[in-house]
Amino acid sequence: MRVKVTLDPDDMPRNWYNIQHDLPEPLPPPLDPETLKPMSPEPLSRLFAKECVMQEVSTEEYIPIPDGVREAYLRLGRPSPLYRATRLEAALETPARIFYKREDLNPAGSHKPNTALAQAYYHSKEGTKRLTTETGAGQWGSALAMSCALFDIECTVYMTRSAFLQKPYRKTLMEVYGANVFASPSSNTKVGQKFLAQDPNHPGSLGIAISEAVEDCVTHDTTKYAIGSVVNHVLLHQSIIGQEAVEQMKMFDAEPDYVVGCIGGGSNYAGLAYPFMREKLRGKSDAEFIAVEPKAVPSTTRGEYRYDFGDTGEMTPLFKMYTVGHTFQCPPIHGGGLRYHGKAPSMSMLINKGYMKSVAYSQNEAMDAAITFARTEGIVVAPETSHAVRATIDLALQCKQKNETKNILFNLSGHGLLDLKAYEDKMSGSLVDYAPDDATISRALETLPKVS
Amino acid sequence: MRVKVTLDPDDMPRNWYNIQHDLPEPLPPPLDPETLKPMSPEPLSRLFAKECVMQEVSTEEYIPIPDGVREAYLRLGRPSPLYRATRLEAALETPARIFYKREDLNPAGSHKPNTALAQAYYHSKEGTKRLTTETGAGQWGSALAMSCALFDIECTVYMTRSAFLQKPYRKTLMEVYGANVFASPSSNTKVGQKFLAQDPNHPGSLGIAISEAVEDCVTHDTTKYAIGSVVNHVLLHQSIIGQEAVEQMKMFDAEPDYVVGCIGGGSNYAGLAYPFMREKLRGKSDAEFIAVEPKAVPSTTRGEYRYDFGDTGEMTPLFKMYTVGHTFQCPPIHGGGLRYHGKAPSMSMLINKGYMKSVAYSQNEAMDAAITFARTEGIVVAPETSHAVRATIDLALQCKQKNETKNILFNLSGHGLLDLKAYEDKMSGSLVDYAPDDATISRALETLPKVS
Repeated sequence: MRVKVTLDPDDMPRNWYNIQHDLPEPLPPPLDPETLKPMSPEPLSRLFAKECVMQEVSTEEYIPIPDGVREAYLRLGRPSPLYRATRLEAALETPARIFYKREDLNPAGSHKPNTALAQAYYHSKEGTKRLTTETGAGQWGSALAMSCALFDIECTVYMTRSAFLQKPYRKTLMEVYGANVFASPSSNTKVGQKFLAQDPNHPGSLGIAISEAVEDCVTHDTTKYAIGSVVNHVLLHQSIIGQEAVEQMKMFDAEPDYVVGCIGGGSNYAGLAYPFMREKLRGKSDAEFIAVEPKAVPSTTRGEYRYDFGDTGEMTPLFKMYTVGHTFQCPPIHGGGLRYHGKAPSMSMLINKGYMKSVAYSQNEAMDAAITFARTEGIVVAPETSHAVRATIDLALQCKQKNETKNILFNLSGHGLLDLKAYEDKMSGSLVDYAPDDATISRALETLPKVS
Repeated sequence: MRVKVTLDPDDMPRNWYNIQHDLPEPLPPPLDPETLKPMSPEPLSRLFAKECVMQEVSTEEYIPIPDGVREAYLRLGRPSPLYRATRLEAALETPARIFYKREDLNPAGSHKPNTALAQAYYHSKEGTKRLTTETGAGQWGSALAMSCALFDIECTVYMTRSAFLQKPYRKTLMEVYGANVFASPSSNTKVGQKFLAQDPNHPGSLGIAISEAVEDCVTHDTTKYAIGSVVNHVLLHQSIIGQEAVEQMKMFDAEPDYVVGCIGGGSNYAGLAYPFMREKLRGKSDAEFIAVEPKAVPSTTRGEYRYDFGDTGEMTPLFKMYTVGHTFQCPPIHGGGLRYHGKAPSMSMLINKGYMKSVAYSQNEAMDAAITFARTEGIVVAPETSHAVRATIDLALQCKQKNETKNILFNLSGHGLLDLKAYEDKMSGSLVDYAPDDATISRALETLPKVS
């Protein structure tokens, strides 16, 4: 039985797919953080590469992947293989067929280089000397540090202090690639100083780290800011995942009935899902799309669809998205990439309009599935990815109950080799589950500006 | 410019290549550890799978890869891509062309599954219920634990106590795959108890861990022992690396002038080198073969070619090989996979007869090259592999000096994501170099039995 399909390097897709071409209505515009009025894209070019700002608002169906990005993709793991999980299927005794796309097979270990390489490439073309960014668990920071090394750009990373202390080797990895890594909140920025004054050992948050990276950017010449999720151009770059998977599912002679992925900001799942969603939006597919979030940060399952800031320091534009509020304190789950208050605007719209569903799992439920997956398929997935594995297994067990031969495709967004503490905690029974109470979420949502 | 070639899964080689078919003379026989007389292979089947014992003494040129092993190879990263290091070449300003074979792209992160999967497969066919083994840095233990999970065999790993304490996540990884991991010396075995009596905090050694794994095997029914390097059948299984690389170098339209790899027991380098060595042994190639060892354990550069035990406890057969003596205390270098007193008998013969050269580097020299490699090619290699990178860079710089366009091929035997401490120590300037003095080596060699 076929367990793996690859694509020849020459057959790697030549275009990214832009979901904005097919959305049921245009995305609501971002709002200026000072005036709360709709903002034009131009000011974003103080932060992002000009090409990325154009992509941010483009409604072209396809955007060509530049040769320099293609070469970097080829060098670093693309095209990535697509597998059939025959051993997991057998262990579950399910008639369902389970497929997974491997985004763990590049040196940074996750899907993040798909956009990090693209952003670094555009910045190198536009003369950017230094990039700033934030990172939580470190996947994004590692990807950007690697990409900056390849395109000869300096890299400054603000890493949430809790992760900086708990995951020293992610920091080391970024430093191997030549990046400067600071624990956030740091004394480098005014916003960092403010939080440090409140608590010299402040554990930080992704929202605060974003604020610091943006402030560092706007207060320094020839410095720009790179972003790892949420915004349109990042999701565009990630579409290479699904563009490949569409071809590879054909090689398996199968169409997915379910497309599954975990969501933090939404970029890995959008990357896999959107090229399949294209067909659904055109009425040509009945596939179901299942976005999986942690119960600890339940943006889409318990939050609201409304305008919110992208960061804690209220420096970024506001986006219309599912959010639990930018002041929500994300609990310290191991899947640090899922510890973000909001979700990508395009994905939020698709969930709100019923094109996608979302479900939530605790980290014990998720890591339990990860161990089953490791012992059957041999791969140790990231704690973030374990949420997608859990949902996949539950769908496969439903298929068993109903005796349905469905095709389930999920995104294996990253490996867990730098997150083995999550496995250790699970196996020793010391993994803590978090679920905020309603009052906590309400309080965070009350701080949001009222925008019609 | 082409940077990567892949093989279609259907084009994965169907045979392992057996160097014993082409060696200039038969390998000297192993000696019985009690009588010091040549031993027949039959007693080895108390330890190894019967099929592996037959392979151990076979002189057939090719041995077919069973379908069950092929399927596991396909699932877990094979065929692996071959890359051209164009960015490293540019950084070195060398006219040489540098190629590398990726053995880091499977879930265990090194070449070790090539034989772990094969051994576990044969054992599952022969009804083995439990496998014991030793591990130092943990690559081998991880590979066997993963393979045992896939073939439903219990797995017991004796891990040198120093690594057990220094690399807790390698232990976690093995446990994720369901293995039982013990710090060695342990109280499970008589030999372990002996060393614990000398020192309750004994740091252990690979040689002691081998003795424990063998004792655990021979004192328990339905239990066999799996081995990660040195012996013929392991090197045979690793030949899949070179079998693929031979085809892939043709796709690059290039023949290697230099074939480079690091050596601990010798298995990753033999895996890449032997299918190319085949041509040299038949007078059809002038390629140079460079085996790279650590200065801390200089078996081939400062040891002797003579009979020695495979383990510290003197329980294994004696092999004729390059050795610094089985009582030699290997210094605590990060590249734990290179901390072994002896080298594979076939490789030792090839070095002794001048078909291969060997060189030695300190870990600072090696890790320096690893950082250059990460910042140019994007890949963080294992500390073991860094020795091969160092030799490759030095060859490329020689080519620059002589203005020679040579092709250098090296084996990227594993990634360094679970060894980032080595990078941290290098970057902070705290990496210690070790080189035993002559008296230390002489003392260890003096303890060897005198065999004609």
